[in-house]
Amino acid sequence: MNGRVVVVFDVLRATTTMAAALEAGVNEILIFPDIESVRRAKPKYPAALSCGEQYCLKPEGFDLGNSPGELGAAQAGKTLLMSTTNGTKAVLAARGADRTYVGALVNARAVAEMARQSSKPLTLLCAGLKGSLAMEDVIGAGAVIQALNEDVELESDEARMAEQLFLASRDRLGQVLRSTAGGQNIIRSNLEKDIDFAARMDVIDSVGEVMDGDPIRIVRAE
Amino acid sequence: MNGRVVVVFDVLRATTTMAAALEAGVNEILIFPDIESVRRAKPKYPAALSCGEQYCLKPEGFDLGNSPGELGAAQAGKTLLMSTTNGTKAVLAARGADRTYVGALVNARAVAEMARQSSKPLTLLCAGLKGSLAMEDVIGAGAVIQALNEDVELESDEARMAEQLFLASRDRLGQVLRSTAGGQNIIRSNLEKDIDFAARMDVIDSVGEVMDGDPIRIVRAE
Repeated sequence: MNGRVVVVFDVLRATTTMAAALEAGVNEILIFPDIESVRRAKPKYPAALSCGEQYCLKPEGFDLGNSPGELGAAQAGKTLLMSTTNGTKAVLAARGADRTYVGALVNARAVAEMARQSSKPLTLLCAGLKGSLAMEDVIGAGAVIQALNEDVELESDEARMAEQLFLASRDRLGQVLRSTAGGQNIIRSNLEKDIDFAARMDVIDSVGEVMDGDPIRIVRAE
Repeated sequence: MNGRVVVVFDVLRATTTMAAALEAGVNEILIFPDIESVRRAKPKYPAALSCGEQYCLKPEGFDLGNSPGELGAAQAGKTLLMSTTNGTKAVLAARGADRTYVGALVNARAVAEMARQSSKPLTLLCAGLKGSLAMEDVIGAGAVIQALNEDVELESDEARMAEQLFLASRDRLGQVLRSTAGGQNIIRSNLEKDIDFAARMDVIDSVGEVMDGDPIRIVRAE
């Protein structure tokens, strides 16, 4: 990822939740590789809120799950300590990039604006589901490609496929996100409202940027 | 691949050429891992024709390139000795499957009919290009999924994406195949007519089936 700008997508739900958190005024999101690491870190950050999921659900003792709709004025100014199954691992996988953002359908246009500020080559990193591609992440990447429009040259068929999939899905995003493996997991967990949140294009202006450190942090990109 | 039915796709061009060869009455296609292996084997099969490509073009001394339009009545009853950059490697990668077919857009419906004869789970194996997914192979897989219609349950988002990509491309397959990385390579090699051949849906009834052996053989599936 050296010398590249990376955008990480975990549309259902981690990167959508991150965008919602920053939009709600969350100060920073500290990223941990697993739920246990969040539990161990919590005493060091007494004012922070733990946030994340395990098998889609809020882990025992956590302050927040991984539902974007949970984030609001009550969390403004707070620090989140976050770990999710796929999304936070993908953020960690992007380490070494020139700049790393987190993207979703809810802020696709804002992500494209941010990516446009750099002339470096762009990698759209789809978090996926247990080592497989997740369709909603590919559609999210396609939404950013489409928003970049004429300003990018597509380097790969993967990028072409993402754009075509987005174009084929844009008028029925809620339905398509319900049909995916990740969407079906969320419906089984009675969290269908999270799909509706994630399927709303361009309702959020905040973009998360990943900052190196231990733990790495996500803050609102300026 | 154990216990599964596999269909290998290298739409531009190997599996399209294999379908065209079998349709033209070629008796069998012997598959070799590289061009040099074909050259070494040739003296053992004095009546056979060598066939394949290197950097898209017919290798020095070969009887045939990898253009599906080259196959016709003149090759009826013949044996081909074949090696291509991606397609024949994918066929070799499928070894161990319960049954392995080679598929393309030109015979998608016939491939679906063949797959429907088995109740085993189906894997659609996209050959790709230098380790990356090739869009035309994913579209070919989507064409078979679409032809299977209600008779399959999609196990993965990859399968859902393939079907959606096919549906989004079906009315302009020639244009989409020209836009892919593989299509652009072929245009640069002045072989654009091969794209037009590969983009014609369901014009061929023959389906190649891979038979174990050394070398492995592809014959017309019955």
